[in-house]
Amino acid sequence: MNKKSLHQLLEQVKIGSMSVEQAIGTLTDLPYADLGYAMVDHHRSLRSGYPETIFSQGKTVEQVVGIARRLIKKDANIMATRADRNVYDALKTISDHVEYHAAARIVVINRRPVTPTRTKILVMCAGTADIPVAEEAAVTAEVMGNRVERLVDVGVAGIHRLLSKRETIQSASVLVVVAGMDGALPSVTAGLTDKPVIAVPTSVGYGASFGGLAALLTMLNSCANGVTVVNIDNGYGAGYAASIINRIANQSVEK
Amino acid sequence: MNKKSLHQLLEQVKIGSMSVEQAIGTLTDLPYADLGYAMVDHHRSLRSGYPETIFSQGKTVEQVVGIARRLIKKDANIMATRADRNVYDALKTISDHVEYHAAARIVVINRRPVTPTRTKILVMCAGTADIPVAEEAAVTAEVMGNRVERLVDVGVAGIHRLLSKRETIQSASVLVVVAGMDGALPSVTAGLTDKPVIAVPTSVGYGASFGGLAALLTMLNSCANGVTVVNIDNGYGAGYAASIINRIANQSVEK
Amino acid sequence: MNKKSLHQLLEQVKIGSMSVEQAIGTLTDLPYADLGYAMVDHHRSLRSGYPETIFSQGKTVEQVVGIARRLIKKDANIMATRADRNVYDALKTISDHVEYHAAARIVVINRRPVTPTRTKILVMCAGTADIPVAEEAAVTAEVMGNRVERLVDVGVAGIHRLLSKRETIQSASVLVVVAGMDGALPSVTAGLTDKPVIAVPTSVGYGASFGGLAALLTMLNSCANGVTVVNIDNGYGAGYAASIINRIANQSVEK
Amino acid sequence: MNKKSLHQLLEQVKIGSMSVEQAIGTLTDLPYADLGYAMVDHHRSLRSGYPETIFSQGKTVEQVVGIARRLIKKDANIMATRADRNVYDALKTISDHVEYHAAARIVVINRRPVTPTRTKILVMCAGTADIPVAEEAAVTAEVMGNRVERLVDVGVAGIHRLLSKRETIQSASVLVVVAGMDGALPSVTAGLTDKPVIAVPTSVGYGASFGGLAALLTMLNSCANGVTVVNIDNGYGAGYAASIINRIANQSVEK
Amino acid sequence: MNKKSLHQLLEQVKIGSMSVEQAIGTLTDLPYADLGYAMVDHHRSLRSGYPETIFSQGKTVEQVVGIARRLIKKDANIMATRADRNVYDALKTISDHVEYHAAARIVVINRRPVTPTRTKILVMCAGTADIPVAEEAAVTAEVMGNRVERLVDVGVAGIHRLLSKRETIQSASVLVVVAGMDGALPSVTAGLTDKPVIAVPTSVGYGASFGGLAALLTMLNSCANGVTVVNIDNGYGAGYAASIINRIANQSVEK
Amino acid sequence: MNKKSLHQLLEQVKIGSMSVEQAIGTLTDLPYADLGYAMVDHHRSLRSGYPETIFSQGKTVEQVVGIARRLIKKDANIMATRADRNVYDALKTISDHVEYHAAARIVVINRRPVTPTRTKILVMCAGTADIPVAEEAAVTAEVMGNRVERLVDVGVAGIHRLLSKRETIQSASVLVVVAGMDGALPSVTAGLTDKPVIAVPTSVGYGASFGGLAALLTMLNSCANGVTVVNIDNGYGAGYAASIINRIANQSVEK
Amino acid sequence: MNKKSLHQLLEQVKIGSMSVEQAIGTLTDLPYADLGYAMVDHHRSLRSGYPETIFSQGKTVEQVVGIARRLIKKDANIMATRADRNVYDALKTISDHVEYHAAARIVVINRRPVTPTRTKILVMCAGTADIPVAEEAAVTAEVMGNRVERLVDVGVAGIHRLLSKRETIQSASVLVVVAGMDGALPSVTAGLTDKPVIAVPTSVGYGASFGGLAALLTMLNSCANGVTVVNIDNGYGAGYAASIINRIANQSVEK
Amino acid sequence: MNKKSLHQLLEQVKIGSMSVEQAIGTLTDLPYADLGYAMVDHHRSLRSGYPETIFSQGKTVEQVVGIARRLIKKDANIMATRADRNVYDALKTISDHVEYHAAARIVVINRRPVTPTRTKILVMCAGTADIPVAEEAAVTAEVMGNRVERLVDVGVAGIHRLLSKRETIQSASVLVVVAGMDGALPSVTAGLTDKPVIAVPTSVGYGASFGGLAALLTMLNSCANGVTVVNIDNGYGAGYAASIINRIANQSVEK
Repeated sequence: MNKKSLHQLLEQVKIGSMSVEQAIGTLTDLPYADLGYAMVDHHRSLRSGYPETIFSQGKTVEQVVGIARRLIKKDANIMATRADRNVYDALKTISDHVEYHAAARIVVINRRPVTPTRTKILVMCAGTADIPVAEEAAVTAEVMGNRVERLVDVGVAGIHRLLSKRETIQSASVLVVVAGMDGALPSVTAGLTDKPVIAVPTSVGYGASFGGLAALLTMLNSCANGVTVVNIDNGYGAGYAASIINRIANQSVEK
Repeated sequence: MNKKSLHQLLEQVKIGSMSVEQAIGTLTDLPYADLGYAMVDHHRSLRSGYPETIFSQGKTVEQVVGIARRLIKKDANIMATRADRNVYDALKTISDHVEYHAAARIVVINRRPVTPTRTKILVMCAGTADIPVAEEAAVTAEVMGNRVERLVDVGVAGIHRLLSKRETIQSASVLVVVAGMDGALPSVTAGLTDKPVIAVPTSVGYGASFGGLAALLTMLNSCANGVTVVNIDNGYGAGYAASIINRIANQSVEK
Repeated sequence: MNKKSLHQLLEQVKIGSMSVEQAIGTLTDLPYADLGYAMVDHHRSLRSGYPETIFSQGKTVEQVVGIARRLIKKDANIMATRADRNVYDALKTISDHVEYHAAARIVVINRRPVTPTRTKILVMCAGTADIPVAEEAAVTAEVMGNRVERLVDVGVAGIHRLLSKRETIQSASVLVVVAGMDGALPSVTAGLTDKPVIAVPTSVGYGASFGGLAALLTMLNSCANGVTVVNIDNGYGAGYAASIINRIANQSVEK
Repeated sequence: MNKKSLHQLLEQVKIGSMSVEQAIGTLTDLPYADLGYAMVDHHRSLRSGYPETIFSQGKTVEQVVGIARRLIKKDANIMATRADRNVYDALKTISDHVEYHAAARIVVINRRPVTPTRTKILVMCAGTADIPVAEEAAVTAEVMGNRVERLVDVGVAGIHRLLSKRETIQSASVLVVVAGMDGALPSVTAGLTDKPVIAVPTSVGYGASFGGLAALLTMLNSCANGVTVVNIDNGYGAGYAASIINRIANQSVEK
Repeated sequence: MNKKSLHQLLEQVKIGSMSVEQAIGTLTDLPYADLGYAMVDHHRSLRSGYPETIFSQGKTVEQVVGIARRLIKKDANIMATRADRNVYDALKTISDHVEYHAAARIVVINRRPVTPTRTKILVMCAGTADIPVAEEAAVTAEVMGNRVERLVDVGVAGIHRLLSKRETIQSASVLVVVAGMDGALPSVTAGLTDKPVIAVPTSVGYGASFGGLAALLTMLNSCANGVTVVNIDNGYGAGYAASIINRIANQSVEK
Repeated sequence: MNKKSLHQLLEQVKIGSMSVEQAIGTLTDLPYADLGYAMVDHHRSLRSGYPETIFSQGKTVEQVVGIARRLIKKDANIMATRADRNVYDALKTISDHVEYHAAARIVVINRRPVTPTRTKILVMCAGTADIPVAEEAAVTAEVMGNRVERLVDVGVAGIHRLLSKRETIQSASVLVVVAGMDGALPSVTAGLTDKPVIAVPTSVGYGASFGGLAALLTMLNSCANGVTVVNIDNGYGAGYAASIINRIANQSVEK
Repeated sequence: MNKKSLHQLLEQVKIGSMSVEQAIGTLTDLPYADLGYAMVDHHRSLRSGYPETIFSQGKTVEQVVGIARRLIKKDANIMATRADRNVYDALKTISDHVEYHAAARIVVINRRPVTPTRTKILVMCAGTADIPVAEEAAVTAEVMGNRVERLVDVGVAGIHRLLSKRETIQSASVLVVVAGMDGALPSVTAGLTDKPVIAVPTSVGYGASFGGLAALLTMLNSCANGVTVVNIDNGYGAGYAASIINRIANQSVEK
Repeated sequence: MNKKSLHQLLEQVKIGSMSVEQAIGTLTDLPYADLGYAMVDHHRSLRSGYPETIFSQGKTVEQVVGIARRLIKKDANIMATRADRNVYDALKTISDHVEYHAAARIVVINRRPVTPTRTKILVMCAGTADIPVAEEAAVTAEVMGNRVERLVDVGVAGIHRLLSKRETIQSASVLVVVAGMDGALPSVTAGLTDKPVIAVPTSVGYGASFGGLAALLTMLNSCANGVTVVNIDNGYGAGYAASIINRIANQSVEK
């Protein structure tokens, strides 16, 4: 509730068209609106075309379905991440618009079509084994309405493969760079573009990769400008962050 | 050197207005241009108004001054980070445009004026002791041509102080959120905005903060959408990443 | 054996109604009572209505049953934590009062009814996946005779949900706050109450959560007053500690 | 602002004794009261007799003095923790009621006398080198109005010294147990009482104590019931948590 | 080969009863004897009655059997540690003297009887779940010819149980103290005896026990005198070290 | 493309025997050749007789087969590491030259015979359980055309066994030394030779070996000269590095 | 108080020569004697000739002197470890028998002469920089009445130096082996003797030695039999543990 | 002592030209020669022209000088690493051939001239702050008789600078690649050459570089072939390992 609507409410109380009890009720029953947090609740799906997201890991299939049912009533698009095929099968029973992106482990319930952005997110990954995390980022961004391009297997040990893609790299508005093992790809990539690079370490590797710790530290210590980092294997988080940046970029293009 | 200028060069060779030797010289003397990397070299200062940056830590004052001398010839604005007063005193001897931002530990050599963006970066920090890192981010962003607003001492243990600033928070195009100790501020802040949040853990704390590790892990594990993380105490990196995002936002506004 | 009963014993020796050998036997057979430690043994079940607890993890079903048999003879209420359904099935064969709290993984053998406290413990958790640990805390507290209220899915990334529950928060005598991932909930909660907050990190999460380490460090580094921490996933320990605090609070109310 | 005062305000608007603008001003100027958070601000010093606390570490002397000046206007008692003698000397220039507890590194500005509780907090420490942290806890509790008893040098390697104090241990309402090195004291102590034990690991030690990590882990893994833990060297946090528990205990006694 | 036998060999060469080639053969074929290391090979089983040990973990059943076959030819007693029932079944096919200590996960091939020492090793453990490691230590010591006494479930949280066993504790020549979780038992035990205490951390626990790291650090940081530590879960190593100390003690008694 | 060929190209443009478009095409279509990186692509298999390698871990069998199909067209020898029997079975369906080295977990497709070097790589390991990693190194080196000798079970606790092999040790051009647990073997070995020692920590061990971390740190801290280290369990990397050193040694011998 | 004296006391109560109140007083006033712990207090100095020890680190000079004054009254020999020259100077003012072992950082107050054992402790160290820790062990053992031999700079990278000392090694009853960096010396040494080896990791090193962690892990993972470990840099603890073992060995010799 | 000289000795005993006592003396007095280890002692300086090295860190100036005096008598070249100017000043007093390489912190006593190899070691570093470690490697290699080329400030974030040096990179026989922060340089470099790459992590960095741990892990996890790693900041070790490889390469060239 902004100052203006507060003013209106108080005027209504003053002139008697709203009782004191009604006014208290309004102020108490809609606390988020009063506080301006309602936006937090609604911008994702209703205003922005952003989907509601269910993080499935650690939840039972029943819990995921229960949450999905509730969200369907809000007429939102829905995305269930870290979802295995059981989740997919269960969600198919409550909606007709269910798709499964197996590599990304994401189930999508697409109820309202989304027009993709003109500007582009580039999702790159260093090795074949990083693909699941890269796909989680790419599908997340696509479901959120972004145009996404993918670039696979461009590790720094064969730098020429990466360099041969520099036009692709430079054509993106924001980049998601996924790498396990030594995690060096974001550093090199960020040197080839002046756009934001979101680095995603993966748990791919063995021995002293310590479940992705090595790649995480590498990325945090990147000497290249414009690199920020998300949690190990957090493709969703990278896809989301890239989406809200690309949305801004798209606005300047579409204007 | 893009295809167009390569075409021109070859045409000149063809018609004889440029000798083969001259052509080789051009292609060899500007190897990065040949490779299309020159952009990397020049966008920062010449095209973008971005300053050249010297990371002073681990360098001698002589080394910093030496690098600065070389950059001054390129007519760029210069920023020396992690610089103590000795660096400031030494740089004053080679330029008249030297300023020292003591809290941020940044020396700036401003040779060409920069018009600030209309859109805004908000730099927040949880506690008084986080100010140096927050200032490094804020000054970096300002030197890179951004309008910056600051918000200090809004830790989550007194959530009302943070909430009372929600309009400030929601008015920014991108946020840099700095916190040591428990590092919980970015999670809460990101729930109050739909803009990108760049989280900066600081080494502020003691005991099980382990030099900022606790805050770093908290931020990487944030449940809030849109949060990405930089290295512990890396105010510069956060300021830089925020700048390239805010530049995009400013373009859509200024268009 | 307190001073009074020691006095009685010595008087009996003095007047000859107890032989020296009998006295030695009594003092030797109850050595802990001699040392004043008997309280440790008895306050839990007999005096306090506190149950005897068996930590089942790492024990065979046979061992758990064996211990339970021994405790049943002491007429105590019994609680087996970290117990799977096999333990439940086995314990049902030795008692008629066996209940299984599946979410909490606790089997209870309730032989004597317990009157709940008037004051209240609030058990909160940040996400759905934290429920098992929260339930372990809640059921432990209930079995120990406390009134318990639960609050689920109030993570700090949606701060308004948490704030809308502030009356519930402020009505509790002691709070158990359970969170995985970034573990930020206790910091924010403790800022909304002046009562003790017992924080329980969970192993919920992935990547840089490192099995709950991230949440643990966050909680230990909390800037909020009144927060203390227990081991990762230690719902039982939190429930127990909350119980002995709430018992004190209840005494002041019931007086 | 509770419902009652909100009702009064709206009534005043209704009957015209308060203008709409005045009402908006009241609601906007006191945002915390609107939200019900004001209690958070005031309970510490005004209602509870709790002091306002300044954590001095990482702050300049000027910053500490500046905050203290502001708090003095609120007529609160003030406590500056992690304060060296320079802070003490500086604070003496702005108040006449300044005391320095050197071992605890705490400066106190006592402006209003506090009546100590009848119930007691026991602060124990394992070794001589743990005394500074123990004193931080003890002085914090005393400034917050608690009766405090101290027990020094009762490490578990000489268990008889600890056992000879069991009556002292059992007479306390809540215990703060401070230990570095192996950190085993809280486990043993908690077995001797049925009251809450707040364990404080210290950075005392060398080698594989890893700055207090060993003691911290020991305490988190305690098999004894009723133990909760605070950050390494966090005497203040333990003293604070003990105070709010002891306050409850005192209420039941004083009633 | 000691100096004396070298002297004999050279004398034989000198008087012609051994050819130079034979002498070279002897010196080359028995290189360890030359170096005096043969003792290393033989003292274990032949001279000391110590068994040959096979660490089964990480070896195939075939490899264990192969090694056992070779050792049987040397007429030694054999002990296979970390052995499951498959190893037991396989070894039964190559010898008639095979026994399986299931709790200790040790298979023993006892071919020559061993007279136990008069002095005693005490193997203690803190909890029921520590028994497998304690048994590995106890059985190792028994197979190596020691008298062993066991003490189970004497954790420090119930200090009276431990204290009631102080005569048992003080009657041992050397103690093996096994504990997981907080690992505090060795510190307290070592304060009750003046004999060597070998501490064995176990991986028993959860959360911040980090696979036994907590207990390991506790033990390394023990303030009690006379405590040394072996690897996590290394019951065998503790049993072996205790045996060579107890052997010395037994010599002084038997003399 | 070196200066000479660039000169030729430009001359052709100048005299009209190559159009400007053709020239641009040449410069753009062959970027690697221009940059001299083609060598990176070809030296492994075509020029050096080195095989192409597929790291199978984290790839599906289908992905491994797909990559192998592509490489077969290049007529290279192929080596699939970390390959289980499923990979072997699948690769047999696309080639007749498939062999499986089970202990090494390596599948080899040998299409062109390789003459082994005269100089020798020695692959040593400390214990039986280290054999898989040692075999990965040995087979890698053999497939790359090296003569390899193996030395098993020469741990430092029985130093005489190691010393008795000193002639073998000193006859190698480069050594791969594999060890888990305490990882001490490379230090001792490097003191017995003046040739390069490549140390490979393994994850063999338990407890405080922390998955090979202990052995890794030991090797990195080796006081012996000439020791370098690869990742935990990285037999392939060690075998590869040894191969390129041994190739140099072989050149000096064969010349 | 053993059964016999308890019997006497009860008899006295029975016959009236002791009042009930006196009996209660006796049982309550002498808890240590009752518990038999007094031995713990006295065996060190009075019965065993062992010195009382003050760990000076973390204590002020005043505190060390205060403790020393108290111990002098008990007529014990005193040893202050981790003591710098200031402690030495201060202790000289309260006793005439003060000596300073600078390399070991130990001040000794020798008031009663000690006859050294016939059996021998060997203190070895790998490098020159490990000498302070080795000396702490050696001086501790000497002050406790042991014959001590020292062996310096016998690191495993030059194994022949170590092997040339094998007679010295085999002549000791117990060995203290001190090493930083890779910490491999105890493993090799333990293979050359059948006596107990107490390993002491030191913080000597740099980089991935992580303050002694590398050496500590190496030693805990030693494959050699008979090795136990103490804390990093804990020369005192190793010297103490060696002393109580050597005392046993000496008894069998002197008998 | 090889078989041949052993044969001669035994023949002399046989024919009486050497007494048994003399023979024993020879075999005992020259144990290293007997064992063939003498080579270890001598190859460094006498045969190879390799210098004797003193690691100065952790040693007093007196200890360094003492060791140097002893080595001077052996007529060897000497190198003192980790040496500050005090060491330099002290060594100047005992020799006329002392030079100080300040950046490398190495003092050299060059008594016999060394002819450099024709083949080349390339020492590269990522940033200015890595120069001290790179210089330690370069000077070590030079003192050991190698031709060394240096390449400074070629971090991967500006990949074109690195690529422009690819001819230099490909002309080296072995490469030492030094990097702190993200440690990504060795991965990229190894992709540009088929020669051995020795990676040296440095402690350069801050925050999550954790004293070089980040760079170390990156390098251990490198996906590029031919990379091996030494300890953090271990320029000496890398220079040494490179030298023994380059020596082999030089042999094949000089032959």
